[in-house]
This record gives sequence, structure tokens and C-alpha cells, in this order.
Amino acid sequence: MSEQSEHFVKSFDQDLKKLTDMLVRMGGIVENQVALAAEAIMDRNADAATRTVEEDVKVDALEREIEQFVIRMLALRQPMAADLRLVVAALKATGDLERIGDYAANVAKRSIVLAQFPAPYSLGGLAHMATLVQAQLKTIIDALGSADSEKAVEVWRSDRAVDDIYNTIFRELITYMMEDPRNITPCTHLLFIAKNLERIGDHTTNIAETIYYAVKGEVIPDVRPKGDTSAYAVVRPRE
Amino acid sequence: MSEQSEHFVKSFDQDLKKLTDMLVRMGGIVENQVALAAEAIMDRNADAATRTVEEDVKVDALEREIEQFVIRMLALRQPMAADLRLVVAALKATGDLERIGDYAANVAKRSIVLAQFPAPYSLGGLAHMATLVQAQLKTIIDALGSADSEKAVEVWRSDRAVDDIYNTIFRELITYMMEDPRNITPCTHLLFIAKNLERIGDHTTNIAETIYYAVKGEVIPDVRPKGDTSAYAVVRPRE
Repeated sequence: MSEQSEHFVKSFDQDLKKLTDMLVRMGGIVENQVALAAEAIMDRNADAATRTVEEDVKVDALEREIEQFVIRMLALRQPMAADLRLVVAALKATGDLERIGDYAANVAKRSIVLAQFPAPYSLGGLAHMATLVQAQLKTIIDALGSADSEKAVEVWRSDRAVDDIYNTIFRELITYMMEDPRNITPCTHLLFIAKNLERIGDHTTNIAETIYYAVKGEVIPDVRPKGDTSAYAVVRPRE
Repeated sequence: MSEQSEHFVKSFDQDLKKLTDMLVRMGGIVENQVALAAEAIMDRNADAATRTVEEDVKVDALEREIEQFVIRMLALRQPMAADLRLVVAALKATGDLERIGDYAANVAKRSIVLAQFPAPYSLGGLAHMATLVQAQLKTIIDALGSADSEKAVEVWRSDRAVDDIYNTIFRELITYMMEDPRNITPCTHLLFIAKNLERIGDHTTNIAETIYYAVKGEVIPDVRPKGDTSAYAVVRPRE
């Protein structure tokens, strides 16, 4: 290898490391937003809600920074094959992380409304859903940092469990609304909170697919489990 | 200009034209999905609903095709500066179009449940919202095809109107739920349908920002109007 091309490879590797570090940093902030949003709902913690929303500025700034860094890398390093896949993957993953941050902020905003109402029922199901989603997110950020396709597949498979809980919560909330009209406003916000958590799970799954493709050069050899069936849900009031 | 670099520029331009054509084709399918989904709700047309969902396969296939074409262009043509921005913009826009298709499919699925219930109230607000969103989408796909940053800004500004209708519909639907528990299931699906239309408007706005940046090399010099205030909505039953 010539001195020049050796220097070139080193520069690319350094840039890729910097890019990965930025992504993992963004992932860390987003992970913290999801944890804060869960705290805001479960503990009626308005301070946690405010912090979740405030963190969004940092996330948006990091997304722009990563995008510009990717464009610079593409222009200066002109990566090929596997290297190119990794750079494009970073661009896709940053978009998913930004959306996850947005969903967490939306959950936090709704927690402020929820705190004005008595809890219509146990939030156990929602807490369980939040815990699962946070665990997936943590694992996928680790997988981003280490380009670990096996961990990515593991997360990809676990999304089904999140969808199952979501479908149960959806039906439960509608039942609570039917029991007492005073439950309708808080339960509507809880419906959207549950939906947001389900969407966070979906974006985590997207990142899993992106990592797998970047590392292996092919898509996950399996059909994505389509678990959210709530669009077809019918719940009728008792006669 | 040497013969070789002239050939190179021509090849890039040809590729860019092909890329734009693919994007516009994808946009056309997605636009049709949104129109079909609106028909499915307004006219209780189950056939339109099925076709909306079926079109999703084409959209997903085109997204993958565009992604692979972008990766090939980056590797073979190694575009710089404005050319590079256009290619990266195509990658971002295809992601937004894919999501819009998903939201249309979700609206269509819910229309099938809705058809099992008497319409709880006039769907006029929703129809108006759907018309606005379709018009925005049509304009943004034109703007994609012609790299028209002025049209993009126009669409970007019009999203506020969609958000305003959404906020009104959100409150109205909650009121209908409170009036009669039999309205709760259909109104919940209508809430998510309205939310999906609002999200389609958001993704259209994303594409507007992407086009502007690609063409101008800078972000739209204005703060994005944040119009969906429904996360903070409180509606209480009449005493």
C-alpha cells in the first residue's frame, strides 16, 4: 500500500470513528429522553417532562451536524462498497433517532395534561411497554457503536412483544373510556402515548435493519413481523 | 472541458434525471394512495381501502430501488457540492414518501372498521383536511421533479392550515365520544386517521425543507411553524 493510500484509509477510519461517536452520543441523548418521558408519565414528574422537550434542541442540532459530516465524508473520502454502506447507514439511523426524540417529547407533553386528571387505571401495561422499548433502544445504540449485526437481529425480533402489549393497551383504554366519560380525555392522551412508544419501537427496528444491511450487505433474511393490529380493532360498549 | 469529463458530467446528469424520475414515480403512487385512502373513508369504499394497502408493496420496492441507485451513484459518480446535495436529498425524500404511503395504508385499514359503524357526525372537517394534504403532496412532488425551491417554501408555509384543522377535529371528536359511548370506537379510529393526515402534512413539509436545502445549500430562513397543539388539549365532559 502506498503511503498516500495508507494515509487515505487512516483518514477514512478516523472519520468513521468520529461519525460513530456522534451517532452514539445522539443515541444516548435520545435514550435519556425516552427514560425521562417514561418518568414524566409514571411519576407525574413535570420537571422530567420539561427536560425531555428541552433535549430536543440538542438532538436536532446533532442530526444536522451528522448530516453535514456525512456529506463532507462522501465528498472528501469518496468511500466505496462496505465503507459507503456504513456512511449511508449513519445518515438513515440519525433520521430514525431524531424521530424517536420527537416521539419522546410528544409523550412528555401529554404527561403534563395527564397530571391534571386522576389516573383512570393502573399504568402497569404502559410502564412495561416503556421498559421494553428502552431496553431495545439501549441495545440498538450499543449495536450502532460496535456495528453488531447479531444484536441488531435480536432487537428486530423483540419488536413483536412491544406490538402485542400495545394492542392490549389499545383495547383496555377504549374500555375505560366507555365506562366513564371523564376518562375520555386522559385515555385519549394515553392512547397516543402508547402509540408513540410503539412508533419508537418501530424506529428502533428500522435502525436494526439499517445496521444489518450496512454490516452484511443484504437485508435480514426474514419477513418483518407486523404486530400492530389496532387499526382493525373494534370494541363495543356493553349493552 | 476534456472529452472524458464531459462524458462524466453527461452520465451524472443522466443518472440524476433517472433518479428524479424514480422519485416522481414513487410520489405519484403515494399521492394516489392518499387519494384512495380519503375515498375509502368518505365513500366507505372497501375496494379503495384494499388498493391503498396493496400499493404499499410497490412503494417499498421503489424505496429500496432508489436507495440502491443512490448508493451506486455515490460510488460511481462521486458527486461533489450541489450535485452531492441533490443525491442525498433524494435519499431523504424517498424515506418521507415511504412513510406517507404507510400512513395512507393505515388510514385505509381504519376505514374498514369505520364502515361497520354509523358515521358519528359529518366528516366535513376530515374531508377538508384530506383535500389540503393531497394538494400539498401534489405540489411537493412537482417541486421534486423540477427542483423548485419556491414551490417548496409555499408548501412549507401551508402546513399551518392542516395543523389548525387537526386541532379542531381532535377536540370535536373527544366531544362526540363524551356524548355517546357507542361513538368511542369509531371516533378513536377517526382520531388516528386525523393524526395520520397531520403526519402526512409533516412529512410533506420535511420534503419541502429537503428540496430547499438541496437547491439553495441553506435551510429555509424561518422558524418552522409548530401547529399541532393537541398534545396539550384538555376537553372535559359537561357537568
